[in-house]
Amino acid sequence: MKPWHVLSNTVLLDCSPWLRVYREHVRLPNGHELDDYYRIDMPDWAQIFAVTEDGHVPMVRHYKHGAGVTSLELPAGYLDEGEAPDEAARRELLEETGLVADEWRALGSYFIDGNRGCGATHIFLARGARQVRAPQLEASEIMEQKRLTLAEVRAAWLGGTFKNLGTLGAVGLALAVLENDP
Amino acid sequence: MKPWHVLSNTVLLDCSPWLRVYREHVRLPNGHELDDYYRIDMPDWAQIFAVTEDGHVPMVRHYKHGAGVTSLELPAGYLDEGEAPDEAARRELLEETGLVADEWRALGSYFIDGNRGCGATHIFLARGARQVRAPQLEASEIMEQKRLTLAEVRAAWLGGTFKNLGTLGAVGLALAVLENDP
Repeated sequence: MKPWHVLSNTVLLDCSPWLRVYREHVRLPNGHELDDYYRIDMPDWAQIFAVTEDGHVPMVRHYKHGAGVTSLELPAGYLDEGEAPDEAARRELLEETGLVADEWRALGSYFIDGNRGCGATHIFLARGARQVRAPQLEASEIMEQKRLTLAEVRAAWLGGTFKNLGTLGAVGLALAVLENDP
Repeated sequence: MKPWHVLSNTVLLDCSPWLRVYREHVRLPNGHELDDYYRIDMPDWAQIFAVTEDGHVPMVRHYKHGAGVTSLELPAGYLDEGEAPDEAARRELLEETGLVADEWRALGSYFIDGNRGCGATHIFLARGARQVRAPQLEASEIMEQKRLTLAEVRAAWLGGTFKNLGTLGAVGLALAVLENDP
């Protein structure tokens, strides 16, 4: 379908690299105009659904201040500047869990907010994961390591345990891909 | 796990009701402090995975300017002020597709961004949906109506057709709930 035409663009707030907010005056294909359409640039992030050699899925449990809740999630993190999504996925899996994996598969990239933007998440499935060192966390990262069986992950997913939309989307997709190609 | 302690809070940008950005000075449970932690308040939204009496899933295809792409999605929309998630779901389904349904089930609420916030999405499954009128759209809503079979929805979900993380998460969950309780 036809994209919108941007008539003007005003940066309202620049807190790079974390976020940048701007207001656009846009004209839609039907001629309708909006002079206060807000968009937010935020960095992309990668999520990793890994399966260890003994069939467990590494997850992390941490307090997420943006949502104000403790959340059980897939390992995940922002792409560094210039970093490819798959590189970020390998780096974050190693940093947050101490695991590496040989068999990687990209499960797609998904935008966070169709109206505002807010970046995208890149989902990866990693099989044959194995521990090579301890997790290496920054001072701002306080998390518990968890290992769930695939059956436990599926039950948690269906039971509403995962409160993070990114984890919800990635877990469901990865489980279906594994069922089709066990 | 222990929440973070907010030492101070500065509103940087207030574009209510669409978004409100603030910077916090926070102290973590391990004593580490961050003086530039950004949070974004945004309105919650509801998504509806409806199944019609003849087994089709109503979806909408529209250009999403935040992401800059045309996207096939579940009917969805912001909660009005003071509106409950299930009320918003019924209203949005009727507005965007002209359908009503008698059998509703809440599939949970999921936060969008664990670091920044950005609101939450509330996912609903509606069965026995039927057309009662034409869609009633605003001038800023330009969308095509689509009806997919459950098999087509599943193939699109696994095949990477859905680029919206919200649709990805809701579709996967709703399909699994339907498989468990056909």
